[in-house]
Amino acid sequence: METTKTAIRMYDLAGADPARRFSPFCWRIRMALAHKNLSVETIPWRYSDKPAIAHSGQDRVPVIEDGDRVIADSWAIANYLEDSYPDRPSLFGGAAARAAARFINSWADTVQNGGTATLIAADIVRHLDPRDQEYFRQSRAQRFGMTLEQLCANRDARVGAFRQTLEPLRTTLKSQAFLGGAAPLYPDYIVFGGFQWARTISDFALLETDDPIAAWRERMLDLFGGLARKNPGY
Amino acid sequence: METTKTAIRMYDLAGADPARRFSPFCWRIRMALAHKNLSVETIPWRYSDKPAIAHSGQDRVPVIEDGDRVIADSWAIANYLEDSYPDRPSLFGGAAARAAARFINSWADTVQNGGTATLIAADIVRHLDPRDQEYFRQSRAQRFGMTLEQLCANRDARVGAFRQTLEPLRTTLKSQAFLGGAAPLYPDYIVFGGFQWARTISDFALLETDDPIAAWRERMLDLFGGLARKNPGY
Repeated sequence: METTKTAIRMYDLAGADPARRFSPFCWRIRMALAHKNLSVETIPWRYSDKPAIAHSGQDRVPVIEDGDRVIADSWAIANYLEDSYPDRPSLFGGAAARAAARFINSWADTVQNGGTATLIAADIVRHLDPRDQEYFRQSRAQRFGMTLEQLCANRDARVGAFRQTLEPLRTTLKSQAFLGGAAPLYPDYIVFGGFQWARTISDFALLETDDPIAAWRERMLDLFGGLARKNPGY
Repeated sequence: METTKTAIRMYDLAGADPARRFSPFCWRIRMALAHKNLSVETIPWRYSDKPAIAHSGQDRVPVIEDGDRVIADSWAIANYLEDSYPDRPSLFGGAAARAAARFINSWADTVQNGGTATLIAADIVRHLDPRDQEYFRQSRAQRFGMTLEQLCANRDARVGAFRQTLEPLRTTLKSQAFLGGAAPLYPDYIVFGGFQWARTISDFALLETDDPIAAWRERMLDLFGGLARKNPGY
């Protein structure tokens, strides 16, 4: 990886195994940094480490530090990288594509990741640092209005409906190799983040093996020398 | 409207009132032609006019004729217009945006238009040319596995869930004026087509009045001198 004067630092959600990075939003940015060929020093971060990112003015990761700039929120970070490093490979491919990427970002946040949570969120707990487990259970019970086990109950019967919600992605990937077209762009990293999240903490099969989305996921795992594939996962 | 040597001709789905153009796919192309400032002669077309478009090799509209070129399918037509008239305002805004537009096209075809059909398809019949009514009832009964009235039953109780499926669109339009960014592009015409379809044949309120999507729809109705607003509708 190319060395810049000072590497960007990124707070990256980790499990009990510090190598297990499992945030869908952090993965968007790990892939985006690699796309722009920017070196990064990742800092394993747990939910109980909120004081470590207090200087970002909020309490969620990803957070990056680039010199004296501190940026939070994956969408804001992607835009910051695009605008601050215009001579590096473009993440979006122009203003119109950036505008359309917002739609895909929102689709991934709601449909994809919301649906994925109802299938695999209960598998997260056993990978968490012991300090994080009770926080995670309580905060998610509050968010979802039920326990993680209730949220993920009966998932074998529900996964077909989830796969159906991925139809816009599937149709697109039947006619082009990546959401970005012939090569991956930020929309691919947005959506891949959700699959990498699942892969990292659950052995549950989100996709059927002959799904065109599964073939695309393999292509994504191969990018940047297998960056995402090297992460602990199933 | 600018006059080209020979206007493009477009077969455009019409109701009993030939001015009532109600196909979501035809509206994508009407708007796209206006965006490119291309003059068009529309030919009112009914389902029973299938022989009139047999030369396109299939039996659905939109079909355009541009000189001796005949093109069917809204996505194919949009791409044809973009590639054949590169000096006119771009419909997509570059290759990456065109790739992302495919995702939005598929989302609109499945989530948006599929959901909209379950709310307003029964209202179509009373606007159809008498020759088309029986064909429409029978073909849709076959497609949906039930009558139009069964498909659209209990819609007041279901519209809330439909509005929820529009969340990716809503979130995007909270942060930018159009899917294309500051100005409309083909993704706006894709999605607008679905709303214009509904508006043209049904008085059912798909959106709450304070929905950001409703404000965007008004902006779309204003485009090109109120092209879409002038169409008969509710």
